[in-house]
Parts: sequence; C-alpha cells; structure tokens
Amino acid sequence: MKLLTNISTLYRVPVDGKHDDVDAVSDAAVAWEGDTIRYAGPLAELPSEYADAQRFDAGGGCVVPGLIDCHTHLCFGGWRGDEFAARLEGASYQDIQAAGGGINSTVRATRNADIESLEEKAASALSDMAALGVTTVEAKSGYGLDRDNELKQLEVYRRLQSSQPLEIVPTFLGAHLVPTEYRDRRADYLALLCEEVIPEVAQRGLARFCDAFIEENAFTLEEGRRILETAKSHGLGLKIHADQLSSGGGAGLAAELGAVSAEHLEYAAEEDIRAMADAGTVAVSLPIASLYLREPFLPARKWIDHGARVAVATDFNPGSAPSYHLHLAMTLAAVHQRMSPAEVLRGVTSHAARAIGLQSTHGSLTPGFRADLAVIDAPDINHWLYHFRPNACRMTLKSGDWLERR
Amino acid sequence: MKLLTNISTLYRVPVDGKHDDVDAVSDAAVAWEGDTIRYAGPLAELPSEYADAQRFDAGGGCVVPGLIDCHTHLCFGGWRGDEFAARLEGASYQDIQAAGGGINSTVRATRNADIESLEEKAASALSDMAALGVTTVEAKSGYGLDRDNELKQLEVYRRLQSSQPLEIVPTFLGAHLVPTEYRDRRADYLALLCEEVIPEVAQRGLARFCDAFIEENAFTLEEGRRILETAKSHGLGLKIHADQLSSGGGAGLAAELGAVSAEHLEYAAEEDIRAMADAGTVAVSLPIASLYLREPFLPARKWIDHGARVAVATDFNPGSAPSYHLHLAMTLAAVHQRMSPAEVLRGVTSHAARAIGLQSTHGSLTPGFRADLAVIDAPDINHWLYHFRPNACRMTLKSGDWLERR
Ligand SMILES: [Zn+2]
Ligand SMILES: [Zn+2]
Repeated sequence: MKLLTNISTLYRVPVDGKHDDVDAVSDAAVAWEGDTIRYAGPLAELPSEYADAQRFDAGGGCVVPGLIDCHTHLCFGGWRGDEFAARLEGASYQDIQAAGGGINSTVRATRNADIESLEEKAASALSDMAALGVTTVEAKSGYGLDRDNELKQLEVYRRLQSSQPLEIVPTFLGAHLVPTEYRDRRADYLALLCEEVIPEVAQRGLARFCDAFIEENAFTLEEGRRILETAKSHGLGLKIHADQLSSGGGAGLAAELGAVSAEHLEYAAEEDIRAMADAGTVAVSLPIASLYLREPFLPARKWIDHGARVAVATDFNPGSAPSYHLHLAMTLAAVHQRMSPAEVLRGVTSHAARAIGLQSTHGSLTPGFRADLAVIDAPDINHWLYHFRPNACRMTLKSGDWLERR
Repeated sequence: MKLLTNISTLYRVPVDGKHDDVDAVSDAAVAWEGDTIRYAGPLAELPSEYADAQRFDAGGGCVVPGLIDCHTHLCFGGWRGDEFAARLEGASYQDIQAAGGGINSTVRATRNADIESLEEKAASALSDMAALGVTTVEAKSGYGLDRDNELKQLEVYRRLQSSQPLEIVPTFLGAHLVPTEYRDRRADYLALLCEEVIPEVAQRGLARFCDAFIEENAFTLEEGRRILETAKSHGLGLKIHADQLSSGGGAGLAAELGAVSAEHLEYAAEEDIRAMADAGTVAVSLPIASLYLREPFLPARKWIDHGARVAVATDFNPGSAPSYHLHLAMTLAAVHQRMSPAEVLRGVTSHAARAIGLQSTHGSLTPGFRADLAVIDAPDINHWLYHFRPNACRMTLKSGDWLERR
C-alpha cells in the first residue's frame, strides 16, 4: 500500500457529470495498492488502514489523473522541418501534398525505416511525454499505406507496450490517404483495406480502433463509411478524422456509426454537432494543429453548449502538429477554444479516456481505477494552464509506479 | 583554453548584414578562453594552438549564440492565474485593469513583497530560462510605481547579477502605468518620475535603459516624450512600449528620440515603421502576448521589407505573457509572424543584442565576443523551431562556463 500526501488540491475528476466538474479537494491524500487506486480524498478522512502505507510527498503541488493524449500519430520515419520553412513562405498543406511532399514523404521515410529505429524514435517521444504527466497515449498507424508497413507500425506499438511504461492504445489508420501507387485505382486500395488488412489487424488484435480521414484529398464520406462499417463488423471501435479543412459530413457519420470519437471538427456543421452530442461521440480537439496551420481553433463553446464532450489532444505528427507537448495543447484550448481550466482538465482525463474507450478504468482518481496520476508544480489548475513552462509536472505515477526522469 | 566539437551546424550569426544571414558552418568547432570566444568555424581550419584545449562534445547538435530575451518584466509579486479564467470568459485586459485587477493587482503584490522573496522568485525563472539556452535577460521594473518600490525591483536585478550566472540588463519602467493613488493628479506622478526617480536611478547606475508605456490607459505621447527626454538627459538609453492595442505614434517617437528599441508595435503606422527602420531602432516583437491576448501578431514581413530589424522576446509578465519559454516565442514568430527560422534566430541573438545595446559583444559567435552559446538537440534551426518540445536545449555556456541543470 502506498500513499501520496501534501497535496494542495486534488482533482478527482468524475467519469460523468457536468463538463466543468473536476471535484476538487483541498489538503488531500491518494492511496493505491499495486496498479489500483484505493482512496482519493481529504487527508482528514483517510481510513486508518492506510496509516502505515509507504508515504510519498507531493510537495504542496496539485494532483490530477494521469494525462491521456488521445490522438497521436506516434510512429513515423523522418521529419519535415524543411517543409516547415516552405509553409512559412505561403505554401499550403495541400500544395505541399500535391507536390509529393507532406504525408507522402513521411510514408516513404516510414516504409524505409526498420522496426527497431521506429520503436526507438517513438520511445524517445514517449519518455518526454511521460515527464509531462502523460500516462496513456493513443497511437495511429497510417504512414505505411500497404499491408506490411501498416502492420509494421502496429507492431511498433505492440513492442512499446512492454518496452516502456506508458500504455499505448493502437488505432489502425490505413485510410489516412490513398497512396500514390494507387492514385488511379482507388477502388483497389479500398479493397486491400477492407478485404485484407482490416480483417488481419482485427484478427491478430493489433489495433483497438479503426480511424479514417474523411476530407478532400483523402477519403469521401461513402468510402469512409465502407471502411468503418467493415472495421465495425470485425469488432474494431471507430474514430474519424473529420471536417478539419471543410465541412464534409464526417462528424455526422461518426455519430451515425457509434464511433467513440471524431477529431479536428473545426468546420463541422451544426446538425452534426448535435448528432455527435446525442450519440455520445467525443469531439477531440487538436489545437496544436490549428496553431501550426494557422487555421481556426475548434469553437469549443458551441460544442459544450450542445452537450458534447470535448477532449484535447496533441495530434503529434511530423506535418501539421510536430509537437507532443500536451501542456501547450491545454493552454491553447483554454486561450483559443475558450475552455475553462476545468473543462480542459476533463478534456485530457475523463473525456480523453472516453475517446479511447477507457472511461471505466482511466482518467479519474476513483477507487478501483488505474493508479495513474501527475503531480503538478502549481497551486491549482488555473495557475497550471496560465503559467506555461517547459514542464510544470514534477512526478508521474503510472500503474502505481513512479516514472524515472531521464 | 576550451574547445567544443562534434557540432552538426554552427550558426555564427553576423552582427550586421541581411536579416536572414546566420552564417551557418557544417562540422564546426568553437574555442574560448575565459569568457571570450577565440575561434568559431570549420573544425578543419581550427588553428593548431587549440589542439590541446580541454574538449567538450556537442553530441552532433547545432550550436547557436547564447539566446537573449531582450524584453521581460522579470521581477513581480504574486501571479494572476484567476484573472486568466476571467479573460477566458470574455473580460478584456482593459476591463480587468479598470476593475482594479491587471497591473494594479501585481503592483500591490510587488509592493507587499520583500526583496529576498522577489529575488528568489526571479532566480527560479532565470534558472528555467538558462536551461532553454538563454544567457542574457533584459528585465524591467514597473510594478513598484513609487520611488522605494521601483528601486526595490532594480535592487533585485542588481543582486541577481552576482547571485546567479545569467547577465541581467535592467530597465527602469516607472512609466508603466499611473498608479491609482495618482489617478487624479497625473502631473504629480510625472514630476516624481522626472524630478526624483529617474535622476536617482541614473545617478546610482541602477538601470541601463528607461522605458515608457505609451498607450491608452497608460501614458500619452507627450507624457512619454517628457519622461524619455528626461531619461536621455541623464544618460539612460531609451525603449518604448508602443502601439500594442492601437496606433498611437509611439514607434515614431522611438525613432525620433533614437531609442534602441520599441516593443509590441502590432498596430504601428506605416510611416512609423519607415522611421524606425531609418533610425536603426529595433522592433521587438512579443508573440506570446499576442497569443494570450488573442490579438494580432506583429506583421513582421512588412517590417523586414522596410529594412527594420525585428527581435523576438517573451515579454514574460504575470498578465499578458505568463511564460518565459523563449522557444515558444520563436516558434510563434515563425508560424504567425511569418519569419524564416534564420530571421527568428537573428531575432533572439544579434538583433536582440542590439535591442539592449550589446551588439558589439553579445549575440554573435565572433572572436572577441562573450563566450555564450547554446547546444540544441536538432540538426538545424528549421528542425529546432518546427519540432516544439519541452526543452530542445542540451547545454548552455555562459561567459565560458557550462551551466548546471537543477
Ligand atoms: Zn491526426
Ligand atoms: Zn512588456
């Protein structure tokens, strides 16, 4: 049995309830046994059975559930720093993509990389993320775009499950883009995905979710429907990249198919917002991508007013969001999506857990839940989000163990 | 004699020349003796006299001049995280200020704080800044707004000169705001500044520059002129906070008076841009404030096209820019001010040095200059600015000594 005390404010974060309810407790304590929370509440009410537990000191910081980055493209070959300079000179993301750069250059680099180097690179990012208080990371394939290389990315995620401490939730995103070699025979690529790769991914348990990029230059609404319905029939959960650059109906499809989440959504239509709220599909906002692309941020107030749950994630990828700094995404969600600090905290804990199907075990400091938490060097979450620093997280507990800083 | 090798790219950064000239050298070495650079150039051309120097390894990273944060409000009491939440709900900075919050609440907290606690708090920020590769920091008073408390802030800066390794360039900003007790007798506050405090600050050598906030709710152009002319007559260099929220002529006044710099400038008039370029007054952009305030970023291309030097700084302060993360300011300057990575690098080195009058000794890896540099974990500056991380800086050299990480 272990015990954390000297906590200025503990944010328990309920699984359900109002979007700004974070259930704050002053002068608190958290007790856990193995990888499971046993008590989280006022120190004064700590049951006597925990009095002899091994004690740890939060140093007067605040404590939040382990952060969940519920949308990343974690595994990829190469980087695209030089395209960054081109974008500064006015080239649009679509221009670069049309010229053979963009996702296609990452696809080439990922196909050329061996599994060990991809694992090492992803592990390095995970180590930095862990230091920021992140304990669970959703991670997508989608830079292989053929059977072997998509499976290679998912195999990297499987290896990372045991080679480093953070939990990885793998998502198959073969429908990220039609690869160039299939440009004139899209139907063949769809057939490859639906008839071969999705069944194999599902059968081998390599992914928990299937995602599709429904956007101009990627997949149509009807193509997305076919891919996702196939994935659903094979037992995979669903996610959709939708309405990032224009309103294409992806958010409505996510609601209709019972997807756990839809992502980006900056241009989603009002009726699709309502449909997602009714269906309980989480809206995953990705403010770092908006920042780098100089595109509008998610109008989160409209979503919250309609009753939708809004999560916040980094979208870490080598093109539109080359940063895994979840604290940056959180501060941007506050300042530019007009979310309150409490709403942002739910967006990276309880709502993020729901966006990856883990809402009954992760994202909340509730007895019986996973012993994942972060100790933040701030008196409260207002100060944490307001005072953006290189790293405000002091200590990270994952499945009951304190993570070493490298 | 000491020597740094295994440098992928060395950016020497010339003092003068084109705004995007950073003088990059591959496979380079830097040699220094005491606090002074002796050699910075290709390893192959290293003079033989340095062969026996004590060697350090840059690990294949790139090397840049020590970064200069040329605009901060480093010393202040308290924080304003709760106002941050209020701003998210739509209160403007002016609303908050009018209601007795904003700068006035920081003035109260700064007046109530003792010099030791102010020094300790500022030193903590400086330690984080040093880890980011920053070696010189401009620091303003302006939260005392009476003789004793303005001098107290400047005394904090004087103590920090010897109690920690970074260089501090102190600026007197008694003309930050008319304090509430002088609200109905502005002329008395101006007299206090011009007849008592400025002469004393100059005579005791407590500041190198005098700054004034020329803006609605602060000081008029004519008041600013009087303050700055007084400061100039006492031998202080000049800076101006100008045209942040509306076009008020402050940039033109900076040019006219021969100020080293003017700051913010988001709304500066075209003729004032031209005047500043002609006068050689540095335009200091503060993109973190634009981000937090949801205000426009500096249209840097227009300034650079007019021949003006554009520096980049954090504006670290507890209201509009509660972050000292210079890398964030740099990435924002690239993405949102449309500055190339080379222009941004000059903005935090050679141009920043010029903005604090240190261009002949700081901000460039030139023999004879101060041995200040940062080793960055990136192959080049494109990658550095593109891949925003908690901290991409591996090692910081200040005046010839490697700084310890805490
Ligand atoms: Zn994405
Ligand atoms: Zn300022």
